[in-house]
Amino acid sequence: MRLTLYTDFALRLLMLLALEPDDIHTVEETARRYAISRNHLTKVAQRLVQTGFVYSVRGRHGGLRLAKTPEDIRLGAVVRATEDNFALVECFDKDRNRCVVTSACGLRGPLEDALLAFLDVLDKHTLADLLKKPGTTQRMRRLLGSKAA
Amino acid sequence: MRLTLYTDFALRLLMLLALEPDDIHTVEETARRYAISRNHLTKVAQRLVQTGFVYSVRGRHGGLRLAKTPEDIRLGAVVRATEDNFALVECFDKDRNRCVVTSACGLRGPLEDALLAFLDVLDKHTLADLLKKPGTTQRMRRLLGSKAA
Repeated sequence: MRLTLYTDFALRLLMLLALEPDDIHTVEETARRYAISRNHLTKVAQRLVQTGFVYSVRGRHGGLRLAKTPEDIRLGAVVRATEDNFALVECFDKDRNRCVVTSACGLRGPLEDALLAFLDVLDKHTLADLLKKPGTTQRMRRLLGSKAA
Repeated sequence: MRLTLYTDFALRLLMLLALEPDDIHTVEETARRYAISRNHLTKVAQRLVQTGFVYSVRGRHGGLRLAKTPEDIRLGAVVRATEDNFALVECFDKDRNRCVVTSACGLRGPLEDALLAFLDVLDKHTLADLLKKPGTTQRMRRLLGSKAA
């Protein structure tokens, strides 16, 4: 069981934006500092802008910043916005489903309940929570290196 | 977020064995009745035998049957046995991980808690629960067709 790379990168981008909230960050800079694919991150950033988590500042010195305070960004909401679907098994995806017992099967209910429990836990944590442990901000910044190339 | 096809097929196989507990079922028959890949199902069956959920009866009229009662097979235990890993994000997989902020990142804790909550819910349901709704056994059998080819 995995989250998509998309969700993984979305969480990384949001953490950087929360870590240095007074700066504008470009996709290029963020991809360099995390040593991840710029192409993938571009799509992730677009999605986070579309879904209202990130604000895109236009122009020559433009880039990205958080559209909400870190306290107002719940991890569950991010995961819901970035996962392409939550088709735990075939019958969760109507278009793809060919399971012959779908109409009688008792498995769907327990799996849906488990998924809700998963998202419930993530809804209890905000982006701010990820950085609040003493020293985290400083250590994250050191590991990410400086903003300048 | 998805479970592997492996887990999906494991749950289907176990449901059939619970549905018709007095019979011995072959992989070939099960694959035909669910209209799924026999090759995939062979590997799934091996794993379920190795992990003690299924008993393999040898010989000419051999096949598979449950090694425990359906009441004693928890869905969480099946999913733990059949998912290759629970690497929700890159840093959960030590061999694959290249995330630069791993040592300071606060994300792992909430994701681990969410995963435990997911499995906790599945641990509350047994294989027997999946078939106990009135009429389920009959409807499942009708949808799966007869044992004979």
